[in-house]
Amino acid sequence: MSQVWKEYQEKNKDRFLEEMLELLRIPSVSARSEHKSDMIKCAEAIKDALLASGCDKAQVMETGGHPVVYGEKIIDPNKPTVLVYGHYDVQPVEPLELWHTPPFQPTIIDGKIYARGSADDKGQFYMHLKALETMVNTNTMCTNIKFIIEGEEEVGSPNLAKFVAANKDLLKADVILISDSALLSMDTPSLDTGVRGLSYIEVEVTSAARDLHSGSYGGAVANPIVVLSKMIASCHDENNHITIPGFYDDVVTVSDEERALINKAPFDEEEYKKEIGIKELWGEKGYTTYERTGIRPTLELNGIWGGYTGEGSKTVLPAKATAKISARLVPNQSSEKITQLLLDYFRKIAPSCVTVNAFEHHGGEAYNTPIDSKGYQAASKALETTFGKTPIPVRGGGSIPICHTLEKELGTQIIFMGFGLDNDGLHSPNEKYNVENYFKGIETIPYFHKYFAE
Amino acid sequence: MSQVWKEYQEKNKDRFLEEMLELLRIPSVSARSEHKSDMIKCAEAIKDALLASGCDKAQVMETGGHPVVYGEKIIDPNKPTVLVYGHYDVQPVEPLELWHTPPFQPTIIDGKIYARGSADDKGQFYMHLKALETMVNTNTMCTNIKFIIEGEEEVGSPNLAKFVAANKDLLKADVILISDSALLSMDTPSLDTGVRGLSYIEVEVTSAARDLHSGSYGGAVANPIVVLSKMIASCHDENNHITIPGFYDDVVTVSDEERALINKAPFDEEEYKKEIGIKELWGEKGYTTYERTGIRPTLELNGIWGGYTGEGSKTVLPAKATAKISARLVPNQSSEKITQLLLDYFRKIAPSCVTVNAFEHHGGEAYNTPIDSKGYQAASKALETTFGKTPIPVRGGGSIPICHTLEKELGTQIIFMGFGLDNDGLHSPNEKYNVENYFKGIETIPYFHKYFAE
Repeated sequence: MSQVWKEYQEKNKDRFLEEMLELLRIPSVSARSEHKSDMIKCAEAIKDALLASGCDKAQVMETGGHPVVYGEKIIDPNKPTVLVYGHYDVQPVEPLELWHTPPFQPTIIDGKIYARGSADDKGQFYMHLKALETMVNTNTMCTNIKFIIEGEEEVGSPNLAKFVAANKDLLKADVILISDSALLSMDTPSLDTGVRGLSYIEVEVTSAARDLHSGSYGGAVANPIVVLSKMIASCHDENNHITIPGFYDDVVTVSDEERALINKAPFDEEEYKKEIGIKELWGEKGYTTYERTGIRPTLELNGIWGGYTGEGSKTVLPAKATAKISARLVPNQSSEKITQLLLDYFRKIAPSCVTVNAFEHHGGEAYNTPIDSKGYQAASKALETTFGKTPIPVRGGGSIPICHTLEKELGTQIIFMGFGLDNDGLHSPNEKYNVENYFKGIETIPYFHKYFAE
Repeated sequence: MSQVWKEYQEKNKDRFLEEMLELLRIPSVSARSEHKSDMIKCAEAIKDALLASGCDKAQVMETGGHPVVYGEKIIDPNKPTVLVYGHYDVQPVEPLELWHTPPFQPTIIDGKIYARGSADDKGQFYMHLKALETMVNTNTMCTNIKFIIEGEEEVGSPNLAKFVAANKDLLKADVILISDSALLSMDTPSLDTGVRGLSYIEVEVTSAARDLHSGSYGGAVANPIVVLSKMIASCHDENNHITIPGFYDDVVTVSDEERALINKAPFDEEEYKKEIGIKELWGEKGYTTYERTGIRPTLELNGIWGGYTGEGSKTVLPAKATAKISARLVPNQSSEKITQLLLDYFRKIAPSCVTVNAFEHHGGEAYNTPIDSKGYQAASKALETTFGKTPIPVRGGGSIPICHTLEKELGTQIIFMGFGLDNDGLHSPNEKYNVENYFKGIETIPYFHKYFAE
């Protein structure tokens, strides 16, 4: 089949790219209420694209939040069914001034598509539509294919669990396939074997009822920035170990064998530092970089603000200071439990001179997939076919909060077959996706279906 | 004379108020470059008001920054001369959403004039123009009066020292009179005997060259918010004593007698807490609230920001975090020395995994005035005349960075005769100045001139 696929894809290359760029032009930022109509516009565009790519049926389906797009191409109920999961929502684009090109005007420079959502995840899930089109139009379909493309992944999929529970029959499949992760490199193909869980909270510290003059009141009234800083400073010890009591309680010790396997992946420290512009590596003592982002839970400050943040100076004693704080979790840690632990911690350590308002943003459980499953083997063979090398299994650092629920509700294992690169700048200014990777994904995906059907 | 002053002021009351409100409508924010033309507009308006109030001469004078307005009414070179200092620039208004009325549309509610600059300092220096007008139009001038109204007080008067040095003859006077401070209350009149010095710096901590995905890189790259928080947390110990080495080196011990005098001023802890909405008092162990804001140096966080600060959540590992930090200084501490100490401290304690960019905003020396001087005695008698009580001498917590330089360059002592109240909300949203205080100031000022000329 490889020859007909190749020919079809070669002939339709330009259109495949242009269609995806069109989708990147819709500013589907799920976190911002002002983009509500863009979310609907984006969902409708995907529905149309699913039909145009060969689905028999496609529809925009309501949830309590942003809609889900469902599509399917059923060739034979007796054949295996692959459910493709993806998300059409994107992260906010701020700080906007750091973008070299407008985030919603995709711009190709040196083979890289710069746009918010190019790698995460529009450019990646769209590969599956073009792989479907390839198979449909070359009469080479060997599995049924279903699509569930959601609009709330970047805000923790608050409505998807309910949607999945209510649509179990519709979503029934033999395997779930997700392209929302990265390869180690184009020379070192890899497959993620899991995602980390997430707990995300916000902590607001209030001292006075209003901003005060720092000369009249400074020294006599607690400064909420100082108080919040002390609270944040207390979370990591000198070995960068998290000190919040109970945080590591449910972390399962990873075997020496698995740690050895993880550290087999090539790692060039100088290249890594140069790539992201850091002076030194950092992290929990006793672990390598891959271990720190793969098998260990972490605690990050995602944002902080308080007082005067404009040009010049203002001698103000601010009334409040706020921080956004999140933890990445590993298997066996409960997101709900850790969220509660974090909330309790920040409420408890606050001195009595301030008021703390701590609340949850969203969370999700970690998920791990076995490498001896039929799905993993099909993905591994597919990458081997198009890259010429067996992919390395790696633990992914990111989170797809819904994975745990998907498997629980549908009883179906998840396979992570992503085609991004670590330097795609997900969630950052100047997010990009390489044109080469986009086409490599479209080339590889049909093989997954072929091997999975065998 | 008191009767003719009273009659004149009563007759012109409404106009006196309306003229001042007109000045409050000009958004003269010195820290923001977009207000450059407003600054010039404001200076011109003051020049016109000085002439209309009875000055023989008034002019807008260039400096390296925002202009200075000079005015004078010379009645007799052999009479004593009073130099009135004030400033027409105001603090930024952010956070704007906390204002109940627009900051540059003065609104009178329950006898309070809500507007940025109402108390600090337009409403206060303008009293001197209306006191001048009162004396000129009732033929009761007994001193010469000069005015120097600057436009950069809120940004540390960076160009005024040079201006003063270049215009020593023009500014020659026997006393400098400043209304830019507060009374303990309308029932307990007071006179400030000094201002604190100031050092103001900004510290920017950078880890990576760009914002990173907190899942892919969190735990493996230093988080600049965590690093900055730890640096801030290190500045105060558990007794709220500042731990920066050398910070207290030049602080002169205040005698038990002076401390006793300071603590004689009435202080109602419950009222104080209620007024500003705090749960508890806070501060350096071993000192009372008045001592903490009067005789002790302090270190405040005026602002902090980094990462995602918008609605909802974003799982980002930010590239940088920044803080605005200032210290209030007491007599004998050098602003330049403390600024350097702070810059060195933050540069030195930063871990090697981050880059620190620390720089100075502005500073100024502390200033103290003796209470046995002719000027202080004239002010004390003036307040006694109109309030019916001898004012209490208090150490002010705020800073007027140029005081030290004014005395040094001109050899002239400064008298602080302010008519604000601590709850005026200087530098805060909803800054206000009471109509009653404005007229009380206009009533009191002529007596200062009378007693000073005696």
